[in-house]
Amino acid sequence: MDDLLERLRAGLPAEALLTDPDVTASYAHDMASFCEAGTPAVVVLPRTVEQVQHVMRTATALRVPVVPQGARTGLSGAANASEGCVVLSLVRMDRILEINPVDRIAVVEPGVINAVLSRAVNEHGLCYPPDPSSWETCTIGGNIGTASGGLCCVKYGVTAEYVLGLDVVLADGRLLTTGRRTAKGVAGYDLTRLFVGSEGSLGIVVGAVLALKPQPPRQLALAAEFGSAAAACDAVCRIMEAGHTPSLLELMDGTTVRAVNAMAGMGLPETTEALLLCAFDTSDPAADLAAVGLLCTAAGATEVVPAEDTAESEMLLQARRMSLTALETISSATMIDDVCVPRSKLGAMLEGTAAIAEKYGLTIGVCAHAGDGNTHPVVCFDHTDADESRRARESFDEIMALGLGLGGTITGEHGVGVLKKEWLARELGEVGIELQRGIKAAFDPLGLLNPGKLF
Amino acid sequence: MDDLLERLRAGLPAEALLTDPDVTASYAHDMASFCEAGTPAVVVLPRTVEQVQHVMRTATALRVPVVPQGARTGLSGAANASEGCVVLSLVRMDRILEINPVDRIAVVEPGVINAVLSRAVNEHGLCYPPDPSSWETCTIGGNIGTASGGLCCVKYGVTAEYVLGLDVVLADGRLLTTGRRTAKGVAGYDLTRLFVGSEGSLGIVVGAVLALKPQPPRQLALAAEFGSAAAACDAVCRIMEAGHTPSLLELMDGTTVRAVNAMAGMGLPETTEALLLCAFDTSDPAADLAAVGLLCTAAGATEVVPAEDTAESEMLLQARRMSLTALETISSATMIDDVCVPRSKLGAMLEGTAAIAEKYGLTIGVCAHAGDGNTHPVVCFDHTDADESRRARESFDEIMALGLGLGGTITGEHGVGVLKKEWLARELGEVGIELQRGIKAAFDPLGLLNPGKLF
Ligand SMILES: Cc1cc2nc3c(=O)[nH]c(=O)nc-3n(C[C@H](O)[C@H](O)[C@H](O)COP(=O)(O)OP(=O)(O)OC[C@H]3O[C@@H](n4cnc5c(N)ncnc54)[C@H](O)[C@@H]3O)c2cc1C
Ligand SMILES: Cc1cc2nc3c(=O)[nH]c(=O)nc-3n(C[C@H](O)[C@H](O)[C@H](O)COP(=O)(O)OP(=O)(O)OC[C@H]3O[C@@H](n4cnc5c(N)ncnc54)[C@H](O)[C@@H]3O)c2cc1C
Repeated sequence: MDDLLERLRAGLPAEALLTDPDVTASYAHDMASFCEAGTPAVVVLPRTVEQVQHVMRTATALRVPVVPQGARTGLSGAANASEGCVVLSLVRMDRILEINPVDRIAVVEPGVINAVLSRAVNEHGLCYPPDPSSWETCTIGGNIGTASGGLCCVKYGVTAEYVLGLDVVLADGRLLTTGRRTAKGVAGYDLTRLFVGSEGSLGIVVGAVLALKPQPPRQLALAAEFGSAAAACDAVCRIMEAGHTPSLLELMDGTTVRAVNAMAGMGLPETTEALLLCAFDTSDPAADLAAVGLLCTAAGATEVVPAEDTAESEMLLQARRMSLTALETISSATMIDDVCVPRSKLGAMLEGTAAIAEKYGLTIGVCAHAGDGNTHPVVCFDHTDADESRRARESFDEIMALGLGLGGTITGEHGVGVLKKEWLARELGEVGIELQRGIKAAFDPLGLLNPGKLF
Repeated sequence: MDDLLERLRAGLPAEALLTDPDVTASYAHDMASFCEAGTPAVVVLPRTVEQVQHVMRTATALRVPVVPQGARTGLSGAANASEGCVVLSLVRMDRILEINPVDRIAVVEPGVINAVLSRAVNEHGLCYPPDPSSWETCTIGGNIGTASGGLCCVKYGVTAEYVLGLDVVLADGRLLTTGRRTAKGVAGYDLTRLFVGSEGSLGIVVGAVLALKPQPPRQLALAAEFGSAAAACDAVCRIMEAGHTPSLLELMDGTTVRAVNAMAGMGLPETTEALLLCAFDTSDPAADLAAVGLLCTAAGATEVVPAEDTAESEMLLQARRMSLTALETISSATMIDDVCVPRSKLGAMLEGTAAIAEKYGLTIGVCAHAGDGNTHPVVCFDHTDADESRRARESFDEIMALGLGLGGTITGEHGVGVLKKEWLARELGEVGIELQRGIKAAFDPLGLLNPGKLF
C-alpha cells in the first residue's frame, strides 16, 4: 500500500492523487443499487496519457487492480471499486481536441461530458447523436465503456456506431491506437468495437475519434394515450411496419406517468395506462406525425395530441428523460432492469412484466425505448422489509428470464457490471463465455482491469 | 489425404464433395491478381450446419487447414486456397429463412447472393443497404467476411452496421451463437462485430441476422464534370461540409470514364478529367441536387447535368459500377488498390496518386467512393514485361504508403487477404498486431482457419 502510493507519486502531480479515506470512499460506486463495492486504496485523477500509462505500469508491477471511472452514473455497478483497487477517474481528461466538419469527426479525451460535446458540435452545424438520459453528467469514456443508448437510438443507433477510433492504455501501460479517422476501414479485426461496451475490462480509453452527423431539423413530437400497454405496443409495431423512421419512439406506463407528474408537475395525462411519445426530425414532421397519429388511433389510442411546437416537444422529451429518476422516488428502493426484446415482442414483454408484478405483489413501473424494444422495468420496494427485498430481487431476475425467453437480451444499454454477471452466462452460453474469457486473457492476462465485472 | 476424404465422406452426402483435381483447381483463388494460392485437397459444399460442423471436427482431428469461400469475387486473395486445404464453399447454404418487417430483420444462410436478398426484402418494402458493385454475384457470407462496402455507404454505412447476430461454427466444430435479434444489446464483448471482416480466420459463418431499413424513395442523380480531380475533391468537401447527406457520392477520373465508354458505350463525357456522381433518395431529391449543383459549380465544375429521371440515374450508377471491370480491360493486368483517407485528404490522395503514376510511367485509373474518401487506384500494366510488373507492384505499395501518411487506411473495404498482409503490420503497429494474434489464438488455437491471410 505504501509502496503503491510511493510509486504512483513518482509519476504523478500531488493533486492527481486522492488518499483521504472519506474522499476515496465517495468513489466506491456508481448509481446502481444493491451492487457490491470495495474500498479503493487510492483515487487517481490523471490529466495526460502518460500519467495513465504510469498508473497502469505501476498497477501491473504491483499486481493491483484498477477500476476506470467516468462520472459514475452507470446503472450496473460496472464502475464500482473493488477492494484495495486504484480508482482511475478520467474526468479531468476532458478536452475536445478537434471538431472537423468536412470529415465529420470529433477527437476527444474520455472525460468530456456528453452534453458538452453535443453543444460544441452543434456550433458547427453537426450533432453527436448518442443521448443517454444522463447526458448532462455522463462522460464519453463511460458511454464507450457501456456502449450507451438513449432516446435517439431508434433512428440514429447507439454509441458503438459512432466510435471510429480509440487510443487505449493497456493493462501493462502500453498505448494502443486502433481504428481510424476515415469513414470506412477493414484493416484487421475490429478491436475498436471490442472496446465499446467492454466496461473498462480490456483497457483504459484515453482518446476517441467520434463520428458526427449533420444536425437534423428540430424534432416535433406527439403524445398518444392508450387504455393498455398492449395497445401502445401494437401501435409501435404498426408504426415500424409502415416504414416510418421516427427520431424517437418512447413509452411510459401509467405508473411512470404519474411518478413524473408527482415529481415535476409535468401535466401529463394522469389516468392513462400507457403514453406513447413519437417524434420526427424530417423535412415535414407534421405530416409524418399525422400519419403516425392515424396508426395510433387504429391501434386504439384514446387521445392523440401533437405538440404545438418544438418547445412543447422538448418538454415531452424532458418528461421522458425524468422517468427513471421519478420512478426512484416512489419507494425507498428500486432495481432498474434493461431487457431488450425484438420489438414485435414488446407487448408480450410488458404483459409478462405486469404478471410478474402481480405475482410478487410489487409495483413495477415501466418506461421503454419502445421503438428499439428496450424496456426499463423499475422494481419498486421497501428495502427495510427483508421479504419484500427478496421478492424484488426475484422479480428482477424473472423479468430477465422473460426477456431471454422472448428472444431478447438481459441488457439493451446499461451493461452487465456486477448486477447481471450471473445472467450473462445464461444469455451467452458456455461457448460464448469461453471465447469472451479468451479475449479478456489476451488483453489483460493478469486480470487487473476492473475485476469482478461482466463474468 | 485418403484418411481425410474417408472421414469427410462419413458425415457428408457424396454430392457435397468435389475431388476431381480439374474441378478443385477452379476453386483455388478469388478475383485478386498476383496473390499466391495453393491447391485444395478437396472442395466441400455443405447444405447444413451439421455438415459444416462435421467438416471442422474432421479438419481439427487431422490438423488440416480449412479455407471458407463464398462466390470468390474477393479482391485481396482472402479466399485463396492454401496447399492441401479443405475448401469449404458455403454457396449451397443459400436460404433466406425469415424476413420480418416489424423487427426489420432478415435471417439468412451465408450463401445467399446479395442481390437476391436485396430483391426479396424489397418485396416487403424494406431494403438491405450494403451494395458492393459485385452484388449480383457475391454472397452475404463473403460480405461479412470482408465487411464489404459499396456505393450506398456514404449514407448507409458498411456491412458491419447491418450484422446483428451470427451463428458461427468454430475451428473445433462447436457452434457459437452470438449477437441478437434485437435493435440494441450490450451483453458482453461484441463478438459479432469481431467476425465481420475477419476473412474467415475466426470461424465459419453459417447464419446471420441482418438489420433492414425501410426502402427509401428511388434516388435521383446528377453528374458534374471537372477540369481536374482536385476540383472534384473540393466539391466533395463542400458538399459534406454544407451538411448534405447524399445517398451516393462517387468519383471517376478521366481514365475510368474513357474505359467505361470504351467497354460499354455509356456516352459519358469523353474528355472530362473527373466526373462526380451525386444522388439523393430524400423526399425532394431535385432540390438537394440543385443545391449540390451550385456547390459543384463553385468548386469549378465545367458542366453539371442532373439526370432526367430515376432510369437515367440508374444508368449513371451502372456506369460507376462497371468502373473496376472496365479499367481491367485497358491493359493485360491490373492491381486494384483500396486506400481510404479522411475525405478532407481526398484531393491530396488523388494528386499523390497521379504523381506516383508519373514517377513509374504507368497508367493508374482511379474510381472512388468519394464521399467516404475511399479510392480505388487501378494500376494498369503489361504483366509480360518484368520491369513494368515490378514498377506496378512498387507503385501499388507507394499508394498505400501515401494513404497511411494522409491518416488513412490501406483498405477501406476489400480487405487484407494475402495481398496486403505485409502492410497490415505497418498500419496497426506492433501492439495492435500482437492483440490481433491473441484474438486469433483464442478462437483458432491450432491455426487451421484460412491460414496465411491477414498476418
Ligand atoms: C438518470 C439516469 C439516466 C440514464 N439513462 C441512460 C440511458 O438513457 N441510456 C443508457 O445507455 N444509459 C443510461 N444511464 C446509465 C449511464 O448514465 C450510462 O451507462 C453512461 O454511459 C455512464 O457514463 P459514466 O461517465 O457515468 O460512466 P461510469 O458509470 O463511470 O462507467 C461506466 C463503465 O465504463 C467504464 N469506463 C468509464 N470510463 C472509462 C474509460 N475512460 N476507459 C475505460 N473504461 C471506462 C467503467 O469502468 C464502467 O465499467 C442513465 C443513468 C442515470 C443515472
Ligand atoms: C467487379 C467487382 C466489384 C467489386 N466491388 C466491390 C465494392 O464495391 N465493395 C466491396 O467492398 N467489395 C467489392 N468487391 C469485392 C468482393 O466482391 C467483396 O469483397 C465481396 O464481399 C466478396 O464476397 P464473396 O461471396 O465473393 O466472398 P469470397 O471472395 O468468396 O470470400 C471473401 C472472404 O470471406 C471469407 N468467407 C466467405 N464466406 C464465409 C463464411 N460463410 N464464413 C466465414 N468466412 C467466409 C473468405 O474466406 C474470404 O476471406 C468487388 C469485386 C468485384 C469482382
